[in-house]
Formats: sequence, C-alpha cells, structure tokens
Amino acid sequence: MSEAGVLSRKADFPGLLTADGRPWHYLDTAASAQKPQKVIDAMTRALGEDYATVHRGVYGRSAQMTLGYEAARRRVAEFIGAEGEDEIVFVRGATEGINLVAQSWGAANLGEGDRIVLSMLEHHSNIVPWQMIAERTGAEIDVCPLTEDGRIDLGALEAILTPRTRMVALAHVSNVLGSVLDARAAADLAHSVGAKLLLDGCQSTPRMALDMKALACDFYVFSGHKLYGPTGIGVLWGRKALLEEMPPWQGGGAMIDKVAFDGTTYAPPPQRFEAGTPMITEAIALHAAIDYVAEQGPDRLFAHEAALARTLREELRSLNSVTLFGPEESAGIVSFALQGVHPHDLGTILDEEDVAIRAGHHCAQPLMEHLGVPATARASFGLYSDESDIAALLRGIERTLKIFG
Amino acid sequence: MSEAGVLSRKADFPGLLTADGRPWHYLDTAASAQKPQKVIDAMTRALGEDYATVHRGVYGRSAQMTLGYEAARRRVAEFIGAEGEDEIVFVRGATEGINLVAQSWGAANLGEGDRIVLSMLEHHSNIVPWQMIAERTGAEIDVCPLTEDGRIDLGALEAILTPRTRMVALAHVSNVLGSVLDARAAADLAHSVGAKLLLDGCQSTPRMALDMKALACDFYVFSGHKLYGPTGIGVLWGRKALLEEMPPWQGGGAMIDKVAFDGTTYAPPPQRFEAGTPMITEAIALHAAIDYVAEQGPDRLFAHEAALARTLREELRSLNSVTLFGPEESAGIVSFALQGVHPHDLGTILDEEDVAIRAGHHCAQPLMEHLGVPATARASFGLYSDESDIAALLRGIERTLKIFG
Repeated sequence: MSEAGVLSRKADFPGLLTADGRPWHYLDTAASAQKPQKVIDAMTRALGEDYATVHRGVYGRSAQMTLGYEAARRRVAEFIGAEGEDEIVFVRGATEGINLVAQSWGAANLGEGDRIVLSMLEHHSNIVPWQMIAERTGAEIDVCPLTEDGRIDLGALEAILTPRTRMVALAHVSNVLGSVLDARAAADLAHSVGAKLLLDGCQSTPRMALDMKALACDFYVFSGHKLYGPTGIGVLWGRKALLEEMPPWQGGGAMIDKVAFDGTTYAPPPQRFEAGTPMITEAIALHAAIDYVAEQGPDRLFAHEAALARTLREELRSLNSVTLFGPEESAGIVSFALQGVHPHDLGTILDEEDVAIRAGHHCAQPLMEHLGVPATARASFGLYSDESDIAALLRGIERTLKIFG
Repeated sequence: MSEAGVLSRKADFPGLLTADGRPWHYLDTAASAQKPQKVIDAMTRALGEDYATVHRGVYGRSAQMTLGYEAARRRVAEFIGAEGEDEIVFVRGATEGINLVAQSWGAANLGEGDRIVLSMLEHHSNIVPWQMIAERTGAEIDVCPLTEDGRIDLGALEAILTPRTRMVALAHVSNVLGSVLDARAAADLAHSVGAKLLLDGCQSTPRMALDMKALACDFYVFSGHKLYGPTGIGVLWGRKALLEEMPPWQGGGAMIDKVAFDGTTYAPPPQRFEAGTPMITEAIALHAAIDYVAEQGPDRLFAHEAALARTLREELRSLNSVTLFGPEESAGIVSFALQGVHPHDLGTILDEEDVAIRAGHHCAQPLMEHLGVPATARASFGLYSDESDIAALLRGIERTLKIFG
C-alpha cells in the first residue's frame, strides 16, 4: 500500500482537522474538495491588497487584475490541453456550463425529432438541462444502459445512435461508482453519426491528466470546488469553431461589441459567454488550485486514488454484510451498502468517529433506481487521503455493524 | 464638510493602500467596492477550517455549512426588507439575476406585441437580456427618456405605458449619473397598467436603506461585490407569488424534487433557481459584508456619499473647463468631462497620482449617445471615501489641465 501513501499532503489543508484539532477523515471529496492553504492565500490576497475589478479600469491595479484573470484562463487551457485560451469560458460551475451548452448550442441546433443521448449513471446536472431544452425544442432523450459492473455500455451506445442524434452527453467519471469512460471511443462513436460529445468532467478533472485534443470531445465542463479550488467558479471548454457559432445565452456587460436600442452586437467567445463582472477572485484562486494539482501530477493522483479505492473495496469485500457497487477499477470513488443499515445511519455514526462520507442518491436518482436502492454510502478519496482514512472508516463500519447487529 | 468624514473607515480595508503602502484614493466603488477585513476573514475561514459543501452531507460540518449558507439568505432578506428568506435567490451577480427573470418570467409571460419598458440610462445588463428575450418572444422594447438633468422621466414613463406593457425594468440608481429613481412612484405607474417592475439595485444597495415592502416593486437584483462583499455572488429578490409561478431556468442538482427519465419535478423557490453546488463561501462572506454595512447604517452611507458628491460637484464647477453630467442630488457618483482631455488620458494621469477613477462608457452606451460623448470620467464614492480622496482627485485634475493646457 505504499503507492497509496505517496501523495498524502494533509498538512497543506486547514480543513482536514476537526474543530478541536483531531484529524478529520474526509471521504467526501467527490462532493467537494478541501482547499490547500495556497488557494486560500491566493483568495485572501485577491480580495485584499490586490483587489480591483477587471477589463474596464484605466488604473494600474485593474490592469494587473485583468492580467491575473486572463492568466487563469491560460492556465486552465494549458492544464486541460485546449488549443487556446479562447476556448475557455468561465462559468459558475459545471452545472452552469452544461446549461449554457444546452440552451445556447441546443436552441440553435436541436429541433423536433432530434435525439440527445445520456447514460443511466448521469448526475442530475447532466440530465435536467437536456430535459428542459428537449421540451423547448421537441428533441427527445435516449438513455444508454450500463454494463453489469456499472460502466457506460459503449456497445449499447453504438446501437442507440442514429443519424438524428445531435448530442451525446456523458460523465467522464461517474460520481457514484467511479467508473471511467473510454472517452475517445465515445467521441468516435458520437462523431460517426455526426453528433457532438459533451463530457461532464467534474470527477475526472481532479483525478486524471486531461488532454482535450486526445479526448477528441466537443465540450467539456468541470467545477473549481471539486478541483481543490473555490466555490462559485467552473469551466466550459468548447471547440473554438463551435463556440463561435453559438448565440449568446446571458446578456449584459463585457459580452457585447456595441449596445444600442436598435440592435446590439456581441463580442467573440469566450467573452460572449461571460456577461457581467466575472468571478474575479475565484478565477485567481482556481489558478492557484491548478498549480497545486499540477505540482502533484494528475497521473499520480489517479494511481494514488485508484489504489486507495482498490484497498477499500478489498477490505469491504471481506465483510459479509457489505454490497459493493460499480466496477473493480474505480477512480477513487467507492459506493456500498451495509445490509440492514440505512446509509444515513451509517453516515451519522461515522460522523461521531470523525469520518465524513456521503449517504444519499448523490444527485443520480435514475442510477439509484437502476441499482434498486434508494441511496448508497459513498467514500471518495482526494490527493490528501491515505490509509489512516480507510482504517478510520473500517473502524466506524465495524462499530456500526455492532450497533445494528 | 464634517458630515462627509464621519464614516471614513479606511483602516478596515487592506485594499486601500498602494503596493508600497501609500494611501490609494479609490474612486471606483461604483464598479466594485473594496472589501473590509471582516469579509476577507469570513471567506478565509469558510474556505479553510469550516469548509464543507451544503445541503447533502450527513456529517456535522456539512450541516453547519448549510446553516451558514441559509443564515446568509435570511440576513439578505432582513437587510432588504423582504417578506421572507424564500424570496431570496442567490445568483452569480445582478446580471445573472436579470437574465433569470428575463428568461424564466419572460419566456412564460411575454408574447408577440407585448411591451417592455427600459430607460435611456440603463446599464447594458438591464438592456441586453431584455433584447434577447424580446427577440425570442416577439415582444418589443420602449425606451423611457430622461429629464434634462439626467433622471428617469416619470412623466414620460406614464405616457409610454400601455395595457400591453408587461415589464418595466429600471435602475434604482444610475451607475453613471448617480440619479436616484422615485421607485415607489415607478412601481405605482407600472402596476397601474398591470406591468411588473424590476429594479436594478446594484448602485442603490450599497448606498441606501432598502425595504422591498415600501418600494412595492416586483423584482430586485444586486451584486455582492459592489456591496463590499465577494465576487461571484449576487441576489435576486422576487415576490414569492411570482417566483412560485416561474419555471426553472437552469437544471441540475439541488433544484429538483425528483429526477426520472420519464419526467422530472422541481423544488419550490428559491431552490428551484439554484441549480448545482452554490456559491457557498461567497454567501458566507456576503453575510459578513451585510453585517458590516448594516453596522455603518445604510442611511448614513447615503448622506455621507451624497455629501461627498455635492462637494466634488462644487469644486469641479469652479473649474472652467469641466462639464458636469447628471443631477445635483447624486447618490455618490459624479460623471464629468474635461474640455480637450480624453477621459482615458485623465484616468492614466490620475493613476500616477494614486487616484483611481473610471473612464469609459460605463456599460451604458445608449446613455453616452444621449449625452453626446463617447465616454465620461466618473468618480464614485464608498463608505471609506473622504475629503482626502477629493483633494487628491482635484490635484490630479489640475496637473492634467496643466499638461494639456
């Protein structure tokens, strides 16, 4: 298990202690990651001695802040292997990114009888926006089933695709099961019928080395707060040619070319999609988060968390009363159930042991229905996780089994 | 001028010093306010030792964070005199708030031939969203003219209103001229033809005591970063009955009741309009900002900044080469021009003197066209402003006049 310990950086994270200074075993990183001190410091500086708005100031500090904001955009582009920074749109979070694509690209490209393909394991944020635009445009949704071990079934995807399929929108990594999509294969399938592929990268961005060119998808979204960054910011990456064709979604300052009551013209992307004063300090803190993650090495993150997930699955399997969900190979996310114990009760008892897991439907109710459970318990790892967290979780599970036994 | 000095709290604001520790004369508060240390501290704690996501955690810290997030909502409701906290929707900023109303309320309530009334002095964020929904629904926009001194002409508004007018959307305080709208009179006029009134409160919220019940408007929006709070958060207030009738705008987690591929149902407001992980730490820091502003007393803020604006206008009027825009009674915002000097050149020279003003169209191009100028210079005050800032500005203007003289 030495592999799993390599990246443990608990000391960098002020959030990983309880209020009275004990180690906090935080196993809910798939919901939101704790922030390294460097990210907090970047935010503090940006809100304090560096603060000014961007884009419109003629004074030096505003120009400096604009440079910082645009440097964050370049850093994101580099981190995910985009062709250039003008493919990076700052949004509030992944949810807004998907809504932007659904409402802007969707309204311009979807019509009666067109088809959108989603999978059975999608997060609500990659379902509801498509249902809403489908209702508005008359498009229809097809649901791609899963393999028996909980991966998106690409064979089934191939069979579902038709020449009327315009959009395929899939999770790169499942937030419940940790299943990793073969994104390149999905892109090739989608493109074979002329459809676009959007990937929900919320869980992959913090755990995998990403290269938009190699993935060959068309849109990619992720949230800053899951990438060890602040809340209130996320990223939509889109191919430049696609973004250029898309109409604006929200109107306001900074996204215009010229405003007049007899007709307004719009700026090119990405500005076209960034109406209003942007998430300035959040972009600067996201830059710091990406620097931090890049320093650890995204490939090492994946190996680290996959190793922890394997260890946890092995340990859980050795307990008779545990059901494990999802594939053996998981990107650091393990969903399970204890026979006779509701996940919420498990979560509550674990909380008393300073262990934080998630219990619920994980914003994936269709997947819960598919699994035949109302909820699962989910332990998810981050770069700061190590074997001590697994040990604490197992101690808590044993105590729970005794209480309910 | 003692009145003007009362509220000067420069020491609370780390942003009010230059990089090498000189006083920075920040006269761009209408663009974005500096943050008091208490706000920065609230953000630091929320991102650090207090950090967890909201709403879905079964562990104690997530429950605590949820309490903090919802306490921020209650604090906003109390601060603006809402009927209750379920009238408060957290958005990214005022721009998003207006887009939300335009696209949700607008799509449900506007049709071919319906009319939307805006004024000539609106910020682009209160123009472009209406142009976009007008184009989608076939509604049309009427433009209310201004009085000679740059206030929205309520007599003209009355004449423009028709039974087909569905929405009147106006700035409570002009971001360029500081003109204060008689909001209650505008509400009564709008309601007399059955229209709704939306007020853009970006400039009023940091400067005036607000009471939604007394204003009698239907929607109110403002941005956190202009209220001495963080970037990335703002507020849409809407009457409960109106919010309840409005369809969701963005889909995702947290805004649903139940998601299924054969039909999704939605949560009641305000959750219906808050898809995805919210701006958690931003809401907590906004709470701290409101506490800070409330401690100073919003009524005193208005008197303080109006007095500074009067002083500055008097001083500028005594210079022959200055054109003053806007009404004598201004909410702390003064737009002007120096004969023969482009506002950008003035701004650049002032920057050398540690004075920050704004020069440009202030995201109000139709107003610039109306004033017959491409840009103005704008000095805007905040609660930390005092006579030293005016003195520094006047010194810089004198130097500029010598250079260009």
